Amino acid sequence: MRSWFVFSPLLTDLYELTMAQVYVEREMFEEATFSLFVRELPGKRTFLVAAGLGPLLSALEHLRFTEDDLAYIESLRLFRPSFLDYLKSFRFTGELWALKEGTVFFAQEPVVEVTAPLPEAQLIETLAINLVNVETAVATKAALCVLAAQGRPCIDFGARRTQGLEASLHAARASYLAGFSATSNVLAGKLFGIPVTGTMAHSFVESFATEEKAFFAFAQEFPDNSIFLIDTYDTLEGARTAVRVAQALKEKGFRLKGVRLDSGRIEGLAREVRRVLDEGGLPEVKIFMSGGLDEEKVRRIVASGTPVDAFGVGTKMGVSADAPYLDLAYKLTEYAGKPTLKLSEGKVTFPGKKQVFRERTESEVAKDTLALREEGLPGEPLLSPVMQGGKALSSPESFAVLRERVKRELASLPEKILLGERSLQAEFSERLLTLYREACERVQKGAS
Amino acid sequence: MRSWFVFSPLLTDLYELTMAQVYVEREMFEEATFSLFVRELPGKRTFLVAAGLGPLLSALEHLRFTEDDLAYIESLRLFRPSFLDYLKSFRFTGELWALKEGTVFFAQEPVVEVTAPLPEAQLIETLAINLVNVETAVATKAALCVLAAQGRPCIDFGARRTQGLEASLHAARASYLAGFSATSNVLAGKLFGIPVTGTMAHSFVESFATEEKAFFAFAQEFPDNSIFLIDTYDTLEGARTAVRVAQALKEKGFRLKGVRLDSGRIEGLAREVRRVLDEGGLPEVKIFMSGGLDEEKVRRIVASGTPVDAFGVGTKMGVSADAPYLDLAYKLTEYAGKPTLKLSEGKVTFPGKKQVFRERTESEVAKDTLALREEGLPGEPLLSPVMQGGKALSSPESFAVLRERVKRELASLPEKILLGERSLQAEFSERLLTLYREACERVQKGAS
Repeated sequence: MRSWFVFSPLLTDLYELTMAQVYVEREMFEEATFSLFVRELPGKRTFLVAAGLGPLLSALEHLRFTEDDLAYIESLRLFRPSFLDYLKSFRFTGELWALKEGTVFFAQEPVVEVTAPLPEAQLIETLAINLVNVETAVATKAALCVLAAQGRPCIDFGARRTQGLEASLHAARASYLAGFSATSNVLAGKLFGIPVTGTMAHSFVESFATEEKAFFAFAQEFPDNSIFLIDTYDTLEGARTAVRVAQALKEKGFRLKGVRLDSGRIEGLAREVRRVLDEGGLPEVKIFMSGGLDEEKVRRIVASGTPVDAFGVGTKMGVSADAPYLDLAYKLTEYAGKPTLKLSEGKVTFPGKKQVFRERTESEVAKDTLALREEGLPGEPLLSPVMQGGKALSSPESFAVLRERVKRELASLPEKILLGERSLQAEFSERLLTLYREACERVQKGAS
Repeated sequence: MRSWFVFSPLLTDLYELTMAQVYVEREMFEEATFSLFVRELPGKRTFLVAAGLGPLLSALEHLRFTEDDLAYIESLRLFRPSFLDYLKSFRFTGELWALKEGTVFFAQEPVVEVTAPLPEAQLIETLAINLVNVETAVATKAALCVLAAQGRPCIDFGARRTQGLEASLHAARASYLAGFSATSNVLAGKLFGIPVTGTMAHSFVESFATEEKAFFAFAQEFPDNSIFLIDTYDTLEGARTAVRVAQALKEKGFRLKGVRLDSGRIEGLAREVRRVLDEGGLPEVKIFMSGGLDEEKVRRIVASGTPVDAFGVGTKMGVSADAPYLDLAYKLTEYAGKPTLKLSEGKVTFPGKKQVFRERTESEVAKDTLALREEGLPGEPLLSPVMQGGKALSSPESFAVLRERVKRELASLPEKILLGERSLQAEFSERLLTLYREACERVQKGAS
């Protein structure tokens, strides 16, 4: 099993297995279509950036139950030998249609649609929701930070407080996809080829008798890659020390890249630090800012004209702190050729295989229509086939492609959506509404 | 490498490696102590439940750089061959003092203190913060749900929307530790021995021509383990169908365990559903509730006298939605026998190896004192050695022990803390304050 992250098919809810046994025992292998979509946008979000499809495709291609897994399932004394045999040879053989990663989307619009024999489509539910949920939440938050930074680089510093270590990889991947410039996460660098970068910690400064000695030591080791953290004791004193060290080592070829501010009244301090650096003959040295940043704080700092050259954005981006999950659901919309739906209060779903047609005026997104897949409505169809017969239809898209797409997508959003003032509500095609009404009638007849 | 979760030492911030190279090149191998503590409690939290130590100890025992890891690090062109040699033979050999998992604690109180040669102690920073952060956040949220449920079982349904799949394992572990009764997460069942359970999904009901046929099919497959989901179309109709199916199969030995409500005005519906079940001769059938639950919603449902027997608590617990991260910091407090601290605005740290002494009046927590480790103050010392020479001092505690501890700990909290009305602020011992003042003076002398 080779995949960029470690995954077990047991990372699933027990009911996926119990339901699958019923399907298998009754030979309910007809094709089912499940739609993965966000019911409502969370919190202040007015758009979402699709992500997580890459890891999902990789996971689906490698989904296997080991002997060990089967022994555990057997030990639960819930399952038949014939079902265990089914699991033993289980492969995902289905078809996926999806939004390309990096596409902007809105409530009710499918991110992924899975069509597969019912037990297969059911068994991957937990996996599909989980991966798209975490990466889409983070990619969207990261995109908001990138927009707020107005061209200044944002670096992912999230690893230490993401929800687990795998989550740090999702955060590094999703934020880089969304326009971040680099990550501090070394494993993400190794696995995904994302540029890695870093500065120094307060503990480093404290490990030396003086701040000056700490800066000297680091500079000697990394003459081209030193960013001094200057706020351990007194920030302005730290800036002056940085200048002293940089000047002292200049002749030996040392070039200070930057200084980092991680605390305090950052706006005011940054101006004074800039002055100290400029007066010290170091106008080329960058000011790097970190510490509890999110898109709001970045926007405020940029708006205030504070001289900052780059942002280290950590925890609040890494966990999408103000919207740590999406109301993402995986709903059956068709089985054995028949449209299905649920009518649960507040959680109604729409039947059928779907497509989103996006119309633009000049370059701006103007209107999305949620329709049936086979309809040929005006506008660009956003979902396309990405997997057939359990195999991805193309090799993973490069970050260059993904980053370019996000850039273009964000540029195509009306300003009010970008600024969080309004969202976009997809319209429903006539045929979809007709199918919905027919399915309602059928179900209500069946249920009564 | 054998560990209950997969881990790479590259899951670290780049600066841990660059700083470590400076330490190694300068032979700064003297012992350093880092303290892992929460600066301020997040959001509405008035206490925290310590968790994550188990996974941390396991990870530290298995920390190894592979050839592959070293090749990647070398490719960054930042590191010396001598440092790569250091990493090649790297083992964590340090000592840990920690709160036992399940212990209740407050702001500024160390959860873990690490003492090790400086480069080792530095290299594990990202790992230590990450694992304690995610499990403590979730264990605390889960404990609040358990308290709110007043004896009714809570089941972890978080897997689908945790931040990654590993996060679902942390959520299952932390919530079970905190008093949850079971999890839907099959892998957590396999790895940790947590009881697994589940019901059925709306898609299951929709896959059959009628709700009744769906219930029959499930009942026949799982005669002792059926919980029918009754809100796919019309909840009361669903309840009546459940009664019909249960009665029809009673003679064949079928025993319906419960019905699940996942949507709608749950309080009102539950009463009517209870009436339908009772009148249908099924007073023993449980009502199981799920759908966007958290401690607030559970408390409201319980307070309203709604007849609910168990709660399926998912996303909001699994990501600790209202407080998805802790302000958890890993700070150097001593190096080479000298106390250290930082004076950064709003982020001051206290020097020295520490201990928390907890005093109780009768059975209730009355006062915590943050002191130096060697002090012998009144009260129970909360931190104890858990790892020496890189080896855990005892085998992992069983869930039985951990769950009992959490129960006892919660029972020892004053009501106002339990209800979220106030927290507890540890007092600082005289000796700690003296050491702090001395260290400040020394640092300010050094820095000026």
